[in-house]
Amino acid sequence: MRYRVEHDLLGEMEVPEEAYYGINTLRAAYNFPITGRPVHRELIKAMVMVKKAAAMANMKLGLLKREIGNAIITACDRILAGEFADQFIVDRIQGGAGTSTNMNVNEVIANVAIEQLKGHKGDYSLVHPINHVNLSQSTNDVYPTALRIAAINLLKPLSEEFADLQEALQQKENQFSSVIKMGRTELQDAVPIMLGQEFGAYAQAIARDRWRLYKVEERLRQVPLGGTAVGTGLNADVRYIYMVIDILRDLTGLGLARAEYMMDGIQNADVFVEVSGLLKSAAVNLSKIASDLRLMSSGPECGFGEIKLPAMQAGSSIMPGKVNPIIPEMINMVAYQVIGNDLTITMAAEAGQLELNAMMPLIASNLLDSIEMMTNAVRVFIERCISGIEADVERCHRYVFESVGLVTALTPYIGYDNATRVASVCRETNKSVKQVVLEMGLMGKEELEKALNPYEMTKPGIKVING
Amino acid sequence: MRYRVEHDLLGEMEVPEEAYYGINTLRAAYNFPITGRPVHRELIKAMVMVKKAAAMANMKLGLLKREIGNAIITACDRILAGEFADQFIVDRIQGGAGTSTNMNVNEVIANVAIEQLKGHKGDYSLVHPINHVNLSQSTNDVYPTALRIAAINLLKPLSEEFADLQEALQQKENQFSSVIKMGRTELQDAVPIMLGQEFGAYAQAIARDRWRLYKVEERLRQVPLGGTAVGTGLNADVRYIYMVIDILRDLTGLGLARAEYMMDGIQNADVFVEVSGLLKSAAVNLSKIASDLRLMSSGPECGFGEIKLPAMQAGSSIMPGKVNPIIPEMINMVAYQVIGNDLTITMAAEAGQLELNAMMPLIASNLLDSIEMMTNAVRVFIERCISGIEADVERCHRYVFESVGLVTALTPYIGYDNATRVASVCRETNKSVKQVVLEMGLMGKEELEKALNPYEMTKPGIKVING
Amino acid sequence: MRYRVEHDLLGEMEVPEEAYYGINTLRAAYNFPITGRPVHRELIKAMVMVKKAAAMANMKLGLLKREIGNAIITACDRILAGEFADQFIVDRIQGGAGTSTNMNVNEVIANVAIEQLKGHKGDYSLVHPINHVNLSQSTNDVYPTALRIAAINLLKPLSEEFADLQEALQQKENQFSSVIKMGRTELQDAVPIMLGQEFGAYAQAIARDRWRLYKVEERLRQVPLGGTAVGTGLNADVRYIYMVIDILRDLTGLGLARAEYMMDGIQNADVFVEVSGLLKSAAVNLSKIASDLRLMSSGPECGFGEIKLPAMQAGSSIMPGKVNPIIPEMINMVAYQVIGNDLTITMAAEAGQLELNAMMPLIASNLLDSIEMMTNAVRVFIERCISGIEADVERCHRYVFESVGLVTALTPYIGYDNATRVASVCRETNKSVKQVVLEMGLMGKEELEKALNPYEMTKPGIKVING
Amino acid sequence: MRYRVEHDLLGEMEVPEEAYYGINTLRAAYNFPITGRPVHRELIKAMVMVKKAAAMANMKLGLLKREIGNAIITACDRILAGEFADQFIVDRIQGGAGTSTNMNVNEVIANVAIEQLKGHKGDYSLVHPINHVNLSQSTNDVYPTALRIAAINLLKPLSEEFADLQEALQQKENQFSSVIKMGRTELQDAVPIMLGQEFGAYAQAIARDRWRLYKVEERLRQVPLGGTAVGTGLNADVRYIYMVIDILRDLTGLGLARAEYMMDGIQNADVFVEVSGLLKSAAVNLSKIASDLRLMSSGPECGFGEIKLPAMQAGSSIMPGKVNPIIPEMINMVAYQVIGNDLTITMAAEAGQLELNAMMPLIASNLLDSIEMMTNAVRVFIERCISGIEADVERCHRYVFESVGLVTALTPYIGYDNATRVASVCRETNKSVKQVVLEMGLMGKEELEKALNPYEMTKPGIKVING
Repeated sequence: MRYRVEHDLLGEMEVPEEAYYGINTLRAAYNFPITGRPVHRELIKAMVMVKKAAAMANMKLGLLKREIGNAIITACDRILAGEFADQFIVDRIQGGAGTSTNMNVNEVIANVAIEQLKGHKGDYSLVHPINHVNLSQSTNDVYPTALRIAAINLLKPLSEEFADLQEALQQKENQFSSVIKMGRTELQDAVPIMLGQEFGAYAQAIARDRWRLYKVEERLRQVPLGGTAVGTGLNADVRYIYMVIDILRDLTGLGLARAEYMMDGIQNADVFVEVSGLLKSAAVNLSKIASDLRLMSSGPECGFGEIKLPAMQAGSSIMPGKVNPIIPEMINMVAYQVIGNDLTITMAAEAGQLELNAMMPLIASNLLDSIEMMTNAVRVFIERCISGIEADVERCHRYVFESVGLVTALTPYIGYDNATRVASVCRETNKSVKQVVLEMGLMGKEELEKALNPYEMTKPGIKVING
Repeated sequence: MRYRVEHDLLGEMEVPEEAYYGINTLRAAYNFPITGRPVHRELIKAMVMVKKAAAMANMKLGLLKREIGNAIITACDRILAGEFADQFIVDRIQGGAGTSTNMNVNEVIANVAIEQLKGHKGDYSLVHPINHVNLSQSTNDVYPTALRIAAINLLKPLSEEFADLQEALQQKENQFSSVIKMGRTELQDAVPIMLGQEFGAYAQAIARDRWRLYKVEERLRQVPLGGTAVGTGLNADVRYIYMVIDILRDLTGLGLARAEYMMDGIQNADVFVEVSGLLKSAAVNLSKIASDLRLMSSGPECGFGEIKLPAMQAGSSIMPGKVNPIIPEMINMVAYQVIGNDLTITMAAEAGQLELNAMMPLIASNLLDSIEMMTNAVRVFIERCISGIEADVERCHRYVFESVGLVTALTPYIGYDNATRVASVCRETNKSVKQVVLEMGLMGKEELEKALNPYEMTKPGIKVING
Repeated sequence: MRYRVEHDLLGEMEVPEEAYYGINTLRAAYNFPITGRPVHRELIKAMVMVKKAAAMANMKLGLLKREIGNAIITACDRILAGEFADQFIVDRIQGGAGTSTNMNVNEVIANVAIEQLKGHKGDYSLVHPINHVNLSQSTNDVYPTALRIAAINLLKPLSEEFADLQEALQQKENQFSSVIKMGRTELQDAVPIMLGQEFGAYAQAIARDRWRLYKVEERLRQVPLGGTAVGTGLNADVRYIYMVIDILRDLTGLGLARAEYMMDGIQNADVFVEVSGLLKSAAVNLSKIASDLRLMSSGPECGFGEIKLPAMQAGSSIMPGKVNPIIPEMINMVAYQVIGNDLTITMAAEAGQLELNAMMPLIASNLLDSIEMMTNAVRVFIERCISGIEADVERCHRYVFESVGLVTALTPYIGYDNATRVASVCRETNKSVKQVVLEMGLMGKEELEKALNPYEMTKPGIKVING
Repeated sequence: MRYRVEHDLLGEMEVPEEAYYGINTLRAAYNFPITGRPVHRELIKAMVMVKKAAAMANMKLGLLKREIGNAIITACDRILAGEFADQFIVDRIQGGAGTSTNMNVNEVIANVAIEQLKGHKGDYSLVHPINHVNLSQSTNDVYPTALRIAAINLLKPLSEEFADLQEALQQKENQFSSVIKMGRTELQDAVPIMLGQEFGAYAQAIARDRWRLYKVEERLRQVPLGGTAVGTGLNADVRYIYMVIDILRDLTGLGLARAEYMMDGIQNADVFVEVSGLLKSAAVNLSKIASDLRLMSSGPECGFGEIKLPAMQAGSSIMPGKVNPIIPEMINMVAYQVIGNDLTITMAAEAGQLELNAMMPLIASNLLDSIEMMTNAVRVFIERCISGIEADVERCHRYVFESVGLVTALTPYIGYDNATRVASVCRETNKSVKQVVLEMGLMGKEELEKALNPYEMTKPGIKVING
């Protein structure tokens, strides 16, 4: 391989001739052989957008020569279009609060721009990664700005998936609105409900998640761009500070606004903890639904067997014909991963010190992973599980009519203590509630039948049975 | 001790004569000798309020005799006034989804009411814990309703403390608005800022926490009361369902509303995960501030020594004169406890199954503890730390003028690469930035002094120095 | 109330006349109104033991006058016997790395000793909390030493409970050794097992926990007593350092040894993270067992219904006759609490800085709570749940013979693909495996019956069926 | 692209002609588009080793024809040598308890073997993924066996890194054994220590981690291979069960043993929680060391500045000459990631149900990532940070002699109360301890100098100064 020589604060280094990144990137790549995973592509894209906006603002203000500025903008556009994706080589777990990612972006943009200006890669007299590409910026303001943009861009499809999930659950609510089944509390038979109501309750929970993720975007939209090093705006022209946000708002279409207090926006990571906390709430709801589906579809013979999940693959390498609830299991796993990631984000945010949070790259890695993973998981959950669920109507029905739980409906008529005695006798003798009540002479047959109508038990109210 | 005999589903038991609780409470007390800590008093109070509202609604609807209803209401009022506090004896970690707490409340109310009606404790023919006190209710709807009320009641003072904390920080922002100091990123000297700006940034973060905790109350206000056993409203008169919320709203003054979908409100605990997640965000901010204060007050001789925390107690049993940052340390600890509690709440919420979350008592214990602990901690933080902080102005000032970090201000004039060389020379030779720049002939003396003005570096902009 | 005046570094304060604690304790009580919970009594006891050992060593070396030393020792003995328990008033969440707890202990011992010497409380010329009681010590070495002792003292009963739990599970293993039931993987019917095997597998897991908790004691036994302020042993006579450990070993009977490197023992808290991590492993096993019991006892009509847990209390305030798995639920809750506490401990340990971990009181609070709570929970689990479990033999048996899962046993004879087809046909037609295999002509009747013997399926091996 | 058609339980599917995986793999790939990350290569390798061992045992017992068996073994060897790495395409987050990974391995081995036998891929009559490759096995026993092997294989290099880290720290202990510096507790100046002692204490902590990770291997070595579906060993020849472990022990060289109770080894995941918990302890130690290094190297001018970390890259895109503690920051991040992963593992293990833990793939992903990430991080920590640390001897020295903390050494001579007064006066007047003690006439000059010798303060004992 051929090399060019580049210099930095620490000396010089050979950079592969064909590389668009430079010495800062290369040092970082050597410093951080940790996970083997590059920085999330959405973060790179958001950073490049920031660079483009800064170049445009700098040009307008005469801080950047038109020729250089245009070369930078074209370079940004090419990267945004998908070129040079393999040039962002720094590991996602990197010390330095994101400086290496910022420098990676600066260097790739500079070298792409240099080639456009017919120069040779590494000839930074044409386009300089810091003096030109990073002009009026610092990693400290660029990084949290880009992370907010990346988070919003990934949250939008997640919100849509939650909307679809809510709808899919509501379709099941309708589909199963007349399937009576036994409700269970603490896994013990309680009182009858409609199978549709199960899905209706899930839909409500998901609706809340959807709303939360929608509302939190507001807080993500406050970006500290223009704050430069520690949020004071040092070395950034005051006109630039206002202008760059306007341009970035247009470029992204995201309704961004300047953080009221840029020092705060740079050093505090609580907004990411908040977003991750809401993902955690959503994970809890998703996991609870998934676990319920696994319970209700348990069996098929020796379990609850109330519903059937669509079969998506053979379930066992040894047990023929076995089909497992693989999609809900995947949902549980994604939930646990999101909850673990939330802890990592929380610890990273808590470790902020003074004017900066050096752990920002870790926050970025976990937050963007969590959002994307949840988006993928919800899509699969809808398509490969929820929408294909079928009820075993007969089994649901049979459970209700065999259950001693029906006795609850009699409490208003015979009192709790009598009803308790009925339940005990039923379980000892294996007789039905109806039979025992009649034998004990607690109610007349006609009023008993009215009172014991399980369909009525799934709605509010005390039946007026002596009317 | 003298005893009375009471009966339940499982048989009979001797209850101490003077006890207002009954057999269900006693069994639970024996079943759960786990933490030695009773249920949080705010949860008991909220439950008693629910009982009172239910009695009022049941009376209005003719479901409960006036005499019995009035006795129940008076009993509730006496408990709310602080009587019988020692009668709530069940451990806070209890199986059964809160049934034991509900029964404890039912039994105490019943026995107090019985005595008011001149009966003997245990004579439930007068006032029955279930048939009368629990009328139209189930633990399943009462418990999550009461927990929401208790959470709101504890969140209000917390919000006030956050408001006070924000104000205290802003006072420091003003007080220190002209104290220049060195900003630090990654604990390395960066560029100058005002000490007031540190506190200003903290105030912003706390303002967000305050707003979040204020807004989340909206979601807590949706209560599933009237849903009874699984949320279907079985055995509750439809008129009762509407009436009881209206009454409870008046009694509590909290703007409560009926949950749109009561089955959801009973089985899903995501709202508590959300609240706890916001406490976690607040914990992160508090902990970051506390850690910063500990850093800035480190020393006094061999550390940063930029600020002095008020001395609150002697710091060491062996090192005379040592004063430690005990209040910020306490804040860190409370933050870690709240974050640990959040995990417990998350796992408990995730473990919900079908129509109920049996882990509700664990959620209650951790959530109410976290809110109350944080409230206490923030009050102490304000009074015994923040408001008494003093600056070591001289030291802050000296640091700035000794630091090589000033060179950043010269980047717009001499470029990043030259500035880097200046920094290196400064560190090797122990000379000042000014000296080195002049020696290297990079700038004229006059423009250099203008550019190096550290006060200007704490504001946005590039100084026009050749004007 | 009458008061005496005491002095410290910060000035003077009125201490209630009858109080045995002094000004340092009182300031701390005012500084930390956080949880309302005092320091764990086992930690106080362990600290008093350290004080006694130090006094004995100091006396032997002539560093402490015999009269004062003896008064201190008697005071320690009285406290260890249970006197003065209400004098330890500092909140468990306290800044200052435990100094307040150490001073609380020093002051109470001093004042008790003073009274024994016929002095008046507060007259520290007789017995001084620091110069005499704390002689040759620092909070820094006393606190982690005491915490190790307290942890060992609480772990011993926990280990015994685990031994009992293992035995209780093995009794069930024997009791149910001939009850055949359907095994389930991913909640789907798999292949038959013996109910006894379920409990046998649980017993194995618990055996590992028991062993882990037993082995970790080794590392807790290394105590840094004698290290004083930062572990260098400053102000402690070299002979004292060796002597005090010997005495403390005798007093506690715990096999304590001096930490090899006392600076390490003072500043690093990883051993507590390790212990807590093992509690977490145990919590995972306990919780898994508890969840399994809840699954297997679900129903009674509409669930698995394979086992019956002993009824411990009425399960519902609205549903008569309902009995819930309250003890296993409590186990799940304790597990989640222990896991949350583990996180708090982890964060506290991670926050150690340089020569000390200031978060030690938080570690102590969570660790000792977790151990004690788990001990209580396991005792209840054994006595009120495990030992009373009964099998529904008929139901377990019926499940096995109705299940299509039996087909797995035929794979060695008819191949996986044929067996899969058999399973499909069974489920479509509701016919038994035997019937379908015969209809499809895949095996002869006799060899089929041999192969399908479910009892054989619970043991290793391929049946030789053509012999 | 050209396709072949394959069949399974659910129907048929087109598989790319060149693919070595088959229909089961392909369905799984479609079912789980979640993280985009494949299963960890070490897990695949361990699984292939299990397959090879099984084939060898099956051949020996005459259960597998020699020709087929040899083809399988050769296929395994080629995969172990690195061929076909791109054929393992299933996402690491996959439902089904690892069945998809097992089938992916089975299918690739089968098709490679088929080609060796001159067949066409997909012609499973030659070598069948289940009937031949998976013979005598189930995912349920293969997966946890392979995970244990993969964990051991990754733990070995981690242990070596810990050994190297311990050594690197001890070298620093020696190098800095005569550099006196101020010790700090709670970030406040305490008493002098040697800089070497700091590193000595770190080395001790790391030694414990090393020992823990070494010892835990014992428990990982117990593998449930031979347990097949639920641990009963169904469909596995009894001779096979013994033989396969012996062969696998030889192939891996790892000292594997058969789990005593295979049902336990299949369903319980506590051993992985234990390992992860020990990684968490190690993470706590690493993170504490990293944070200390960041503190001690803070500055260079406006911080502690006691040590210098080797400069590894330019620190800022805006602040010239800034060098940041990037390697310790990376260590903190890795620690937080490992702690977050531990939570995910804990939740996954807790979610086990009855005869299986369906979340095993999530445990595998997080556990193997954590081990590998920590290994990489420790290597970098040693090479790019620890071994290049230099002390600022002059600054360390100056701190000690300027500090009021020296007064602690005088307590044995002038008492705690006098010493406290000295400290107060020093701080008010900015005079040295020596000066104030002499002015207050508390000690003679000569004995004072002896007592105040800071080098003596770093060792145990009370100086006999009147000798």
